[in-house]
Amino acid sequence: MTDFTREIQLVNQLADVSTEVICQYFRQANIYAETKLADRSSIVTIADRQAEEAMVNILRETVPNDGIIREEGENIPSKNGRYWVLDPIDGTSAFVKGLPVFGTLIGLVDSHQNLPLVGCLNQPILQERWLGITGKIPTLNGKPLENPYAKLTDSQLKDACLTSTTPIMFITQRQQAIAAKLQQVCKRIAFGGDCYNYGSLASGWSSMPMVILESDLKYYDFCALIPILEGVGCIITDWLGNTLNSESTEVLAASNQTLHQQALEVINN
Amino acid sequence: MTDFTREIQLVNQLADVSTEVICQYFRQANIYAETKLADRSSIVTIADRQAEEAMVNILRETVPNDGIIREEGENIPSKNGRYWVLDPIDGTSAFVKGLPVFGTLIGLVDSHQNLPLVGCLNQPILQERWLGITGKIPTLNGKPLENPYAKLTDSQLKDACLTSTTPIMFITQRQQAIAAKLQQVCKRIAFGGDCYNYGSLASGWSSMPMVILESDLKYYDFCALIPILEGVGCIITDWLGNTLNSESTEVLAASNQTLHQQALEVINN
Repeated sequence: MTDFTREIQLVNQLADVSTEVICQYFRQANIYAETKLADRSSIVTIADRQAEEAMVNILRETVPNDGIIREEGENIPSKNGRYWVLDPIDGTSAFVKGLPVFGTLIGLVDSHQNLPLVGCLNQPILQERWLGITGKIPTLNGKPLENPYAKLTDSQLKDACLTSTTPIMFITQRQQAIAAKLQQVCKRIAFGGDCYNYGSLASGWSSMPMVILESDLKYYDFCALIPILEGVGCIITDWLGNTLNSESTEVLAASNQTLHQQALEVINN
Repeated sequence: MTDFTREIQLVNQLADVSTEVICQYFRQANIYAETKLADRSSIVTIADRQAEEAMVNILRETVPNDGIIREEGENIPSKNGRYWVLDPIDGTSAFVKGLPVFGTLIGLVDSHQNLPLVGCLNQPILQERWLGITGKIPTLNGKPLENPYAKLTDSQLKDACLTSTTPIMFITQRQQAIAAKLQQVCKRIAFGGDCYNYGSLASGWSSMPMVILESDLKYYDFCALIPILEGVGCIITDWLGNTLNSESTEVLAASNQTLHQQALEVINN
């Protein structure tokens, strides 16, 4: 098995160039922000566009056979089954408000096996970089992550914090009903946070075990997070408990297996 | 008119001691977190209790004639009409999740005139300290704040970001209907952020003008923010456009007068 040295170097290069772009625009007024969707759930700034373009340029030059799945521009097909999955600013809403709890998501996936090989969550303002590599302990700024909740088998939803970026992401009546059911049984409900919530989850930062329930997501919203979370004992699947793939839109993540199982039971009963 | 030198010194002392306590507990597991209210909208950690206690101890010793209105413990009556209004951790939810977008709120108010004299929003982890003094330009870490949106008279809700900490704060049907109306007309809806949203508002950090709509608040949730916001041309009132007082629970804040007026019209028509 490869140690992914070259890929990690490339991931760091992508995180560096996107950091440079994003820091130029963070907390600046009058950056163009265009609403992409009629439901106003998505927004584009110059920072999104330029950060993605900078990453894509490097990839086209360095690994021209790899494909690219991206938030802003057209996807690029792969010649070897490997895809880079890019979200320049996950949490544009926090970015637009000037809150440093958004992130750049960079994933590398082997599409033949639906296997995320490498994942990076980069917070450019706070200079926090999570890196996950399949089969290895993930790191934050090079330091191995520890999730104190990973091995607990007595966690309970009534002692857990449930988080979702926004209630607006629960679109269908079914999704709204499921969110409401889970909200009823958890100790605390907290909105906001976007991908930074997953960084916190992987790092065991929350002062109580955590469950993240989200819907209406795209592949680039979660692909990079998978190796970071799984490498530290967190569980991330779809709402049925299935492995996530490029078509998934409903995501359930939890601090440990016990909590994840309980959440699945609430969702599906 | 006093220049509040002594009060500012005291505010900084309070912000320093609360910082010390909060940094001890931030991102620590197993800090006791007790749910205060049946609706799970509020939570207490050791950090809240100890940070407030540390501030109260200093105030009792330094200004024993001043009263205290506080989130956690019993209020203390004033002998001179002056009250310190304390919220050790506004945004306990973000604190519990390990997100550095909560803050300590320290206000000093002359209750005879319902006049907030001094207000401080302190973010202990990112080491950001906003300070507002009635009649003066507010500062962030000693540097005068600038709000680029303050003087704009052509701002429109359709170009603005609407933010609220959580949809759960809209409790009554009337509140929910008002929130829904305003959400319909704004460009972007963003949840989360707590008092940090107001710090961003005062600093003009958002990349589009911003409106904050909140309800179910207590005096200590907004008192300290008033001199910070008003000193930089932001508007903060209740949902009828009235000056906030210790009984207010519904808060509307905006980047400028034009936007605030438009939001008031949506709310009250």
